Amino acid sequence: MTATTPPVSDRQRQVEDELVQTVLASFRETPDARLKELMQAMVRHLHAFIREVRLTETEWQQAIDFLTAAGHITTDRRQEFVLLSDVLGASMQTINVNHEATAGATEATVVGPFFVEDSPEIPIGGDMAAGAPGEPCWVEGTVTDTHGNPVPGARLEVWEADEDGLYDVQYADGHLAGRAHLFTDDEGDYTFWGLTPTPYPIPHDGPVGALLDKTGRSPLRASHLHFMVTAPGLRTLVTHIFVEGDSLLASDAVFGVKESLVRRFERQAPGTPTPDGRDLAGKSWSRVRFDIVLPVPHDR
Amino acid sequence: MTATTPPVSDRQRQVEDELVQTVLASFRETPDARLKELMQAMVRHLHAFIREVRLTETEWQQAIDFLTAAGHITTDRRQEFVLLSDVLGASMQTINVNHEATAGATEATVVGPFFVEDSPEIPIGGDMAAGAPGEPCWVEGTVTDTHGNPVPGARLEVWEADEDGLYDVQYADGHLAGRAHLFTDDEGDYTFWGLTPTPYPIPHDGPVGALLDKTGRSPLRASHLHFMVTAPGLRTLVTHIFVEGDSLLASDAVFGVKESLVRRFERQAPGTPTPDGRDLAGKSWSRVRFDIVLPVPHDR
Ligand SMILES: [Fe+2]
Ligand SMILES: [Fe+2]
Repeated sequence: MTATTPPVSDRQRQVEDELVQTVLASFRETPDARLKELMQAMVRHLHAFIREVRLTETEWQQAIDFLTAAGHITTDRRQEFVLLSDVLGASMQTINVNHEATAGATEATVVGPFFVEDSPEIPIGGDMAAGAPGEPCWVEGTVTDTHGNPVPGARLEVWEADEDGLYDVQYADGHLAGRAHLFTDDEGDYTFWGLTPTPYPIPHDGPVGALLDKTGRSPLRASHLHFMVTAPGLRTLVTHIFVEGDSLLASDAVFGVKESLVRRFERQAPGTPTPDGRDLAGKSWSRVRFDIVLPVPHDR
Repeated sequence: MTATTPPVSDRQRQVEDELVQTVLASFRETPDARLKELMQAMVRHLHAFIREVRLTETEWQQAIDFLTAAGHITTDRRQEFVLLSDVLGASMQTINVNHEATAGATEATVVGPFFVEDSPEIPIGGDMAAGAPGEPCWVEGTVTDTHGNPVPGARLEVWEADEDGLYDVQYADGHLAGRAHLFTDDEGDYTFWGLTPTPYPIPHDGPVGALLDKTGRSPLRASHLHFMVTAPGLRTLVTHIFVEGDSLLASDAVFGVKESLVRRFERQAPGTPTPDGRDLAGKSWSRVRFDIVLPVPHDR
């Protein structure tokens, strides 16, 4: 279409411009200045898109149908709009835009669609896998703030897919596994057992999956373990750690990989003694260290 | 925020640019050239919006929640995404963009969220109101094509709100009224009884209504009667007629008014004889003429 679309006449351009101005003006009386800015900017970019591509009425209808299907597949346990934002890089760009406020801290990445509230609490050294299949992984680290102070009592939410590529919310019976929260000790240290991360596809049986398919893209995510770290007076960090050497690091479906978040997972041969004496019945395991720096909010 | 946002550093700009390039590149292998163009343009405008407004993570979450709520209120009878497109002027801009292909024809306007398939057929001169409350209105016209030829057998779908501002799909019991289809006669002429259009609010008990409320906008639409006109070999026309003198013509919630679609509805005093001898039991009525020109598709 690009090559064959005739140029837009001056008169036509004027009609289109006038509509943009009319729509912008309709938001003139918005009481909240920020909401007004957001709506007017959205209108400008949305209309610029429609005009640039010369959107057809059929394509408009396809967009309505896509959003409708995304809405209908979305539940408490399936968030297709987050997936859509993720695969368009919009989630990651939003994180980028807010990154300067967190300079010096551990980098953030996408929250993804699988975080759920009310995970079970585990003690330090506890097992968040809770029976989810996969290779055990010992995770340890220290939480500090950007001033270098350890953060005791920081809350770590951790969640990950099992070795079949499924989060618990994707299990048919929905039983809870592979997610938990724990708190750092008096020195800001934490340890827990999880699973060595493995790759998995984002849910691709819905409209976002169909879009990836039509555009020749893979739904696979680089292997990762999710963290959300909160502490009073500090900015919340939502991030992952990725696995050094994973072949998917360069083609993550949601553009979530940051070099600074790639960690070496040290693989341990079957029978290697575990840090806490846990008996793994001869299974192999891995270990990884992830020290976390939380941003002190700027005064502004 | 605009005035106080610090300038973006070169390094930060580079990180954001790189993400845009990575996302654009992910669509490189899209087999369909038009889909590739649409996706890449969407990515450019979406990222430009996020970067320009420096979208916060809270605002991103609000957008996800908004889309989720819109999806969940949408049913066969309620289309919140069409409403959203309408109140952002995106529906009307899409129609504008496609207008040059229909030069010389009756102008199009938004389809709106209330069209439904499988309306009942009425004969020429029949009553599409079917008991919906309101002042009777005699509608007549001729359908021709842009070459000036009358179009016999053109199918007219007509639908409108009753005097309470409700479409039949909004009735609690969902009974059918205020919608029908009919066909032009051998000369391309049609007549039917409907209702004199009255203003109504778009459905505003959902997320789009909340948005209008927060932005100080009215949900009211200028009074109108919907038409969708189809005939073999001609482009389909979706339009309304509006009521001359309606105070809402300049502030239609969905930007649907075109000067060329405003018609004089001639009000008839109670007891005035009707064109077809229908006995209106002493009620007042109105009449309007709407001649329709359908576009002959260009050879391209
Ligand atoms: Fe994940
Ligand atoms: Fe309407």
